[in-house]
Amino acid sequence: MVYLTRRYRFSAGHRLHNDAFSPEENRRVYGKCNNPSGHGHNYLLEVTVKGPIDRATGMVIDLATLDATVADRVLEKFDHKNLNVDVENFRNQVPTTENLCREIYSLLRISLENLATAPGLEIAAIRLEETSLNSFAYVPESAGRHMERG
Amino acid sequence: MVYLTRRYRFSAGHRLHNDAFSPEENRRVYGKCNNPSGHGHNYLLEVTVKGPIDRATGMVIDLATLDATVADRVLEKFDHKNLNVDVENFRNQVPTTENLCREIYSLLRISLENLATAPGLEIAAIRLEETSLNSFAYVPESAGRHMERG
Amino acid sequence: MVYLTRRYRFSAGHRLHNDAFSPEENRRVYGKCNNPSGHGHNYLLEVTVKGPIDRATGMVIDLATLDATVADRVLEKFDHKNLNVDVENFRNQVPTTENLCREIYSLLRISLENLATAPGLEIAAIRLEETSLNSFAYVPESAGRHMERG
Amino acid sequence: MVYLTRRYRFSAGHRLHNDAFSPEENRRVYGKCNNPSGHGHNYLLEVTVKGPIDRATGMVIDLATLDATVADRVLEKFDHKNLNVDVENFRNQVPTTENLCREIYSLLRISLENLATAPGLEIAAIRLEETSLNSFAYVPESAGRHMERG
Amino acid sequence: MVYLTRRYRFSAGHRLHNDAFSPEENRRVYGKCNNPSGHGHNYLLEVTVKGPIDRATGMVIDLATLDATVADRVLEKFDHKNLNVDVENFRNQVPTTENLCREIYSLLRISLENLATAPGLEIAAIRLEETSLNSFAYVPESAGRHMERG
Amino acid sequence: MVYLTRRYRFSAGHRLHNDAFSPEENRRVYGKCNNPSGHGHNYLLEVTVKGPIDRATGMVIDLATLDATVADRVLEKFDHKNLNVDVENFRNQVPTTENLCREIYSLLRISLENLATAPGLEIAAIRLEETSLNSFAYVPESAGRHMERG
Repeated sequence: MVYLTRRYRFSAGHRLHNDAFSPEENRRVYGKCNNPSGHGHNYLLEVTVKGPIDRATGMVIDLATLDATVADRVLEKFDHKNLNVDVENFRNQVPTTENLCREIYSLLRISLENLATAPGLEIAAIRLEETSLNSFAYVPESAGRHMERG
Repeated sequence: MVYLTRRYRFSAGHRLHNDAFSPEENRRVYGKCNNPSGHGHNYLLEVTVKGPIDRATGMVIDLATLDATVADRVLEKFDHKNLNVDVENFRNQVPTTENLCREIYSLLRISLENLATAPGLEIAAIRLEETSLNSFAYVPESAGRHMERG
Repeated sequence: MVYLTRRYRFSAGHRLHNDAFSPEENRRVYGKCNNPSGHGHNYLLEVTVKGPIDRATGMVIDLATLDATVADRVLEKFDHKNLNVDVENFRNQVPTTENLCREIYSLLRISLENLATAPGLEIAAIRLEETSLNSFAYVPESAGRHMERG
Repeated sequence: MVYLTRRYRFSAGHRLHNDAFSPEENRRVYGKCNNPSGHGHNYLLEVTVKGPIDRATGMVIDLATLDATVADRVLEKFDHKNLNVDVENFRNQVPTTENLCREIYSLLRISLENLATAPGLEIAAIRLEETSLNSFAYVPESAGRHMERG
Repeated sequence: MVYLTRRYRFSAGHRLHNDAFSPEENRRVYGKCNNPSGHGHNYLLEVTVKGPIDRATGMVIDLATLDATVADRVLEKFDHKNLNVDVENFRNQVPTTENLCREIYSLLRISLENLATAPGLEIAAIRLEETSLNSFAYVPESAGRHMERG
Repeated sequence: MVYLTRRYRFSAGHRLHNDAFSPEENRRVYGKCNNPSGHGHNYLLEVTVKGPIDRATGMVIDLATLDATVADRVLEKFDHKNLNVDVENFRNQVPTTENLCREIYSLLRISLENLATAPGLEIAAIRLEETSLNSFAYVPESAGRHMERG
């Protein structure tokens, strides 16, 4: 089994806020991330896939296919956007990095795990660095018996 | 002469937009940075000061003083804010990284160049990394005969 | 399951030396790390926790709680200290990075795995970068069937 | 169990090309990596081993032994070489990073997993960064029930 | 004056060899970089330009223009190429990183210093990182009274 | 003129303390860096030299010569040492990073600026990163009309 990790970057604005919380609760839970006019980040996205090495090509997946899929399914929707306003799935869900990881997994799974050109490919982890101090990783249930470093 | 460079980080939202331009012009000049609901970045700020080494302490400036000044004059105003909305000087000025550098220099100069504890200290450059691909540096006029790598 | 990795930094002095070894043996086993007056490092500490995403907050753990715990249990004891002299548990144990990882896990486990605000949270790995060339990771026994990249 | 990851670097030239493919197919599969006169990379190699901490030394493996093994078995063969021309195993195998990882594992396994001075040591992963955007990891079959982030 | 530094990356193969030297002299001068079949690197290119901030746009230069110029004049010629074979100016000149810097300056100067949209713009430095340990910078003669850190 | 910057790393212990100060004054000036048993750092050293490109070799200086000089004059004295105890020049001088830069310049100048194989070579700057947040640069007097970013 070989794992391939490919890095992508996008910049986006967001505000952490839950309408179901009182203003004080929002402030307490989200701190300065609750600033009413929002703020933003440069996100570093790492998509890790695993699969067998194709004997003929020597590759797990063609990078052009992977890049086109991530650009189309994720970057176009998220890059230089305000996540709360411009991304439909975050209108009713707080755009924490945890939720972003899970969302990106959902957006990529069907496309990447059914490629005719990369049979047996699975997403092993979706990792997102929000700042140089924080990173988050979503590890799919299908990899449930296993563990992944975030 | 010794130069000290200290790194700080802040995250902020912004939108590049000039009211004096037409919508088409704004889109052409600022591209996806003109997105109406904004986006954001993790900014890496490098403050470079230069001065003589104090014989007794062996230091150019006490870092606690430098940190407190930058926190009070810059980070508190910019970190986890929307630059267009929350920072007064960007209500009538486009918050490009070029303008941010010049603004931060103005905010720090009087405080840092008149410290009783660091006589002769000057700001040599204010450098700001907007993404891992871009950085900008403002070099003060007082250093006019000289050049600094951005 | 979501993994959160948070980075911390501390600087410390140490000397690798085992009183049970002869001077020659110490020199052979630890090389220049056995220098009698010691040396030191900037350590990069990565604490990885895993847990379910809280539906209301969208978070695995409140970062302020995590930071306060790590500061109180680890950083205050280790940062700007001489590990052999100032940290009780290294008076009878060689302060290799391997032992540091295990020690930090012990110091954090009880605090982090019993938080009322983050039920189900577990430490997935304690990773420590001693230099830019070396890193070590301790993976708890409770994660025994699994493997973690160091 | 403690994991140790040690970083090494080498620079090498290569060309991705499969004689069994037509020129058009080679160009389609490998893109600009198929350039007839080749190109090259700075490879960052991470060797991750896992094992118990030796009670006396406090270490998983002596780094001098690890370094000497990797230098002798891998770096001497690959550093400042043309992989297609100078490395025997890539005369009949495309030098993709996937294949490089597997090859390096084969070169290191026997040496590292039978050291008298580090009983129980296993290679947990061989990870190779080809550029700052791509990395690949080979995880040995013996670690089959487990998963590793690439 | 504001300095803008923009980062680009390219991967290329090369061989350091001077036909005017004897084989022994080539080996002595260039060491393992003289390997007959060549090797390669990931080059990190930093283009630093300086100029006044445009009052209307708040920018020193439009990044799309800068990127298109560097792509057209440099990256297309160098990326995924063998410098000795595929780049005309290195057929009679050793492709050391020093010479690469000077060559890239020549390729960019006329295009960047005569842009109608960025009057007064000058190249302040061309910096090239060959490996994580080495970097080189060419500082134009026109900046002769000044000095730039490499 | 071409600038070459070469990176080196060393790890050392130190304590900031001036015998001429009272204990309170030492604590106030140096904070936790005054810890009686010391602490330590991984230092990143950048040596920047400038000179003309040799027409025959295409190089500013042979890297093997530069490396041997820095190893012999600096690294051997500083790496894995306690600066206050093991380095003669810091017995009567506080080992701040400012003083380290100046000291390293003194140790390298005569060796590097009189090489028969690199006529005209000058040290342009000695830069030292003490932590990922702090760096210091010493710029020689001979470069007095000029300025260098630290």
